[in-house]
Amino acid sequence: MFEEAGDVFRSQLDKTSRPGAGASGWVLPQFETEFGATIRDVEMAYETHGVLSLSGDNVVWLCHALTGDAHVADGDGRPGWWGALIGSGKAIDTDRFFVVSANVLGGCSGTTGPASAAPGGEWAYGSTFPEVTIRDMVAAQKVLADHLGVRRILAVMGGSMGGMQALEWAVMYPELVGKAVVIAADPQFSAMGIAYNDVMRQAILTDSHYHGGDYLRYGEFPEQGLRVARMLGMISYRTATLFQERFGREVLDGEFQINRYLRYQGDKLVRRFDAQSYLALLRAMDTHDIGRDRDGLASAFARIRAELVWVGIDDDLLYSPATLRQAVEFATSCGVNARYEHIASVFGHDAFLIEFEQLRHILQVILQMP
Amino acid sequence: MFEEAGDVFRSQLDKTSRPGAGASGWVLPQFETEFGATIRDVEMAYETHGVLSLSGDNVVWLCHALTGDAHVADGDGRPGWWGALIGSGKAIDTDRFFVVSANVLGGCSGTTGPASAAPGGEWAYGSTFPEVTIRDMVAAQKVLADHLGVRRILAVMGGSMGGMQALEWAVMYPELVGKAVVIAADPQFSAMGIAYNDVMRQAILTDSHYHGGDYLRYGEFPEQGLRVARMLGMISYRTATLFQERFGREVLDGEFQINRYLRYQGDKLVRRFDAQSYLALLRAMDTHDIGRDRDGLASAFARIRAELVWVGIDDDLLYSPATLRQAVEFATSCGVNARYEHIASVFGHDAFLIEFEQLRHILQVILQMP
Repeated sequence: MFEEAGDVFRSQLDKTSRPGAGASGWVLPQFETEFGATIRDVEMAYETHGVLSLSGDNVVWLCHALTGDAHVADGDGRPGWWGALIGSGKAIDTDRFFVVSANVLGGCSGTTGPASAAPGGEWAYGSTFPEVTIRDMVAAQKVLADHLGVRRILAVMGGSMGGMQALEWAVMYPELVGKAVVIAADPQFSAMGIAYNDVMRQAILTDSHYHGGDYLRYGEFPEQGLRVARMLGMISYRTATLFQERFGREVLDGEFQINRYLRYQGDKLVRRFDAQSYLALLRAMDTHDIGRDRDGLASAFARIRAELVWVGIDDDLLYSPATLRQAVEFATSCGVNARYEHIASVFGHDAFLIEFEQLRHILQVILQMP
Repeated sequence: MFEEAGDVFRSQLDKTSRPGAGASGWVLPQFETEFGATIRDVEMAYETHGVLSLSGDNVVWLCHALTGDAHVADGDGRPGWWGALIGSGKAIDTDRFFVVSANVLGGCSGTTGPASAAPGGEWAYGSTFPEVTIRDMVAAQKVLADHLGVRRILAVMGGSMGGMQALEWAVMYPELVGKAVVIAADPQFSAMGIAYNDVMRQAILTDSHYHGGDYLRYGEFPEQGLRVARMLGMISYRTATLFQERFGREVLDGEFQINRYLRYQGDKLVRRFDAQSYLALLRAMDTHDIGRDRDGLASAFARIRAELVWVGIDDDLLYSPATLRQAVEFATSCGVNARYEHIASVFGHDAFLIEFEQLRHILQVILQMP
């Protein structure tokens, strides 16, 4: 399964590595992580849509969530995760904007991560892949941006783990970022978020096929552990109201429909996602705290020059609207031009991948020419 | 570990099996489950406090939650789960009331369950223990009540799975029950509740020591699986606000304090609870629906003669105050004398084991002489 993914990626590498529409790959010869490790030959899978302006300033940079990837717009026979919003004449109009999305460092959809072959060896990194942070993801994307000739990012956007990246973009590269749209994400990951992540982590570690993270060497995969982790993820991304309306207590073939649905979602993820990569990304979310090693939240916010739009969603279990409104207030008190937008939805956290009509309204205002 | 528990239980059996204060045991020669299985020699561990009146009508019957037991009042060197509320002069005044609490059928704290020795064999039931329901738990308690000489239950009470039992008591034995206090429980278990249960279940099944439920025969125990299940349980019983206030992003020895806390709670449960019993009780919660095989909720509610007090808790993830208020409205529309009481708490679901001052006020009103 991961050999296959590697093949797909290598075939992507054969394509042009110059800016252009569609899926591409690029290799950073070397990347230094925030915590001091060196990763060599970092492959980066990314997609671009539209044309970069001569001044390199019409860029909309999109950051994906935990189990997302670079495939943000529809194409290649499958929908993109924001396909409804990206294209000619759409909210993120590819006739005007150069849209970029890259698979994150530590991921498993084309960019180097734990399932990638370690240099000089026949094995995948597995447990030897160094710890990466949200800042590392953004720093790697910044190198890609330079490579693509990006001089200014009109707007960086993302939801959940993508929102964490969007916010870090604004803190790390204040001169580069015009607007940052942070959807369903917080300035520092919460205790409850850390807790859910740990239960997902422990579920994977419980699987005897995990082999300390080096399962690929054994030709095994902690399927059941990753499936359970995904089931829990799905629960935290949706709402009790939604599940009650959609499934209630309905039973099919002796099994509750809600459980069949969750297991189906778990199965789907197991077929396309690496368990060790999942763990690496959970860890990156855990360490997300824009104030870390920057004298705290206030001084991190004070660095931001971008206009900040924070988007909250009804009944989001881990990123409640109340918490995000507080973040906006705090950012404002630190001198940031920040405001709050709200998505009303029964879907909860996942609404940022579903409520396109409301997102369209929010994005259209943000992307109006200044 | 379970041999020890069995020994303790057998020593309890040596005590008097007549009504009296303290921990006791009793054996039902035979019990027919709702789904048609027969369980022989059902041991029941229970506690009583206070003295049964001559007319047998001063009874307060307490039902415990998923990982609770019959030890409801302080004593024997350890606190009871409602110790603060039970005793001479307390809210449930043992000078006036005869207080009874029994470990549930399918449990593992003295009453027969999957970890108990199956009759005629040297092994525990394990996977062969028949499916039990909330109604089975209540029916077994009713036999115990008859044995004890109980003629009328002044009030039956419980939280969470205990609340489900309290409600079933009122439906199954309308002539017997005067008042039912249903705390943080619903008339039919919700889709989201079923979902959380399934993730906990799958975490246990993931553990290779589980052996299809017959781990005791292998001298093994799915410790890690049960630990993960408990961690998830704890998350769903508390609130994001509480965890943020108490733990935030604090780290000790390289580990987030919230995770250390959850794993500690997991370890504690693993030392005292049987995994297969845990699964049996999850399943009983899943099938909880007072309307099942009774022509629906309305006709089940219509059977109730008891005064119904439904208690909701702020930020209870699985039993929201809004849902419980709806249940009260619906019960009222079915002719039940029902009302809603509220516990304000940052603790969430677990507040029914913590907010004793508010519980005291609620119970004092309920237990005033008619």
